Amino acid sequence: MTEWLPTLRTATPEEGYALAVRLARVAVKLTQPDAAVRERLRPEYAEDADALIAASQVVATHFATVAAANDYWRDRR
Amino acid sequence: MTEWLPTLRTATPEEGYALAVRLARVAVKLTQPDAAVRERLRPEYAEDADALIAASQVVATHFATVAAANDYWRDRR
Amino acid sequence: MTEWLPTLRTATPEEGYALAVRLARVAVKLTQPDAAVRERLRPEYAEDADALIAASQVVATHFATVAAANDYWRDRR
Amino acid sequence: MTEWLPTLRTATPEEGYALAVRLARVAVKLTQPDAAVRERLRPEYAEDADALIAASQVVATHFATVAAANDYWRDRR
Amino acid sequence: MTEWLPTLRTATPEEGYALAVRLARVAVKLTQPDAAVRERLRPEYAEDADALIAASQVVATHFATVAAANDYWRDRR
Amino acid sequence: MTEWLPTLRTATPEEGYALAVRLARVAVKLTQPDAAVRERLRPEYAEDADALIAASQVVATHFATVAAANDYWRDRR
Repeated sequence: MTEWLPTLRTATPEEGYALAVRLARVAVKLTQPDAAVRERLRPEYAEDADALIAASQVVATHFATVAAANDYWRDRR
Repeated sequence: MTEWLPTLRTATPEEGYALAVRLARVAVKLTQPDAAVRERLRPEYAEDADALIAASQVVATHFATVAAANDYWRDRR
Repeated sequence: MTEWLPTLRTATPEEGYALAVRLARVAVKLTQPDAAVRERLRPEYAEDADALIAASQVVATHFATVAAANDYWRDRR
Repeated sequence: MTEWLPTLRTATPEEGYALAVRLARVAVKLTQPDAAVRERLRPEYAEDADALIAASQVVATHFATVAAANDYWRDRR
Repeated sequence: MTEWLPTLRTATPEEGYALAVRLARVAVKLTQPDAAVRERLRPEYAEDADALIAASQVVATHFATVAAANDYWRDRR
Repeated sequence: MTEWLPTLRTATPEEGYALAVRLARVAVKLTQPDAAVRERLRPEYAEDADALIAASQVVATHFATVAAANDYWRDRR
């Protein structure tokens, strides 16, 4: 992977959320580097409520970090 | 999706909680973009205690973030 | 639901804990609004150790938020 | 229950840990108030590695709160 | 148990991590005080990927607390 | 293990993420020190969506700690 995470700063909360989603996915890639296997697993967990909720939990944890890094975008008008 | 998260500020804790619920749901949408599939899964997990508790856990994590972003609504009278 | 969360402030840690329990339950209600279904699920998870522990985890996460909101009730004598 | 949580302050980290354990258990009691049922479940989860780890996770979350409430017992000699 | 947690301060991040591991294990001991049972469970979960990951999660939560208690060992050269 | 964690400081968020991945793996090694067993388990969980998501959750928790330790790399240009 080339540089994929130059900063935790984002212009908006929404971009921060998108970054959290990416942060959650990178760990999966690092544990399962084979894209073909990941593609095979995707439909499986994308139709499994438990897996969807668990994935949402990982995003929530990363979003907390990204939000803190951006001081909750408080200085935004 | 159009802009769905302009800010983490809410007027009240209750609106903050509602925002946490939305934050939890958006990750599910991003992982399973097909609304028809999500509709099919809904009755399944909405009648499964484990899934309901897991979903509540995601909301709790997001609520922590939203509450911090609002400085716990301390300046509210 | 009428206003159910006017503030995160509580007079005592104990009331803060009770609030955390309520915060955990509201998410379940929002995901499964049908009280009859919830009543049907209750005996099931209330006799399942894994579900009880998972529910306790959600309370722990909310209690962290409520405790921070109250500055850990430090100024209490 | 009579007053069971007058404060989050403890004299030592060890007492703080003990308090975290209690905080984890109280949520279980509130969800399953019947002591007889809890006694029946106990041997079951106390011999289940997954349940023991999950219970330890709840304690960890509460310990984080109690430790913060005590400013990590930094002023202790 | 004699005094096992006199302080959350450690000289290095590595010792802090070791402390987090101990903090995770103590809760298991308190829930299952019988060492013979714990020994019996050990090979079981030590060969179960899900249990290993869950145990690692508990360590992560405690490490966050220990790291904060040590101000992230920032003043270390 | 020789010294493996001299500091939580990293030059970039990306290196911080890599450190979080290592922090997640060390706990697994400490619980299952036998490298042969870990190798045997790896293909199993690397092809299991639930395990991949759970592993990603541990990384997320450690990343929060590492990010805080680095003050979110805010002073980086």
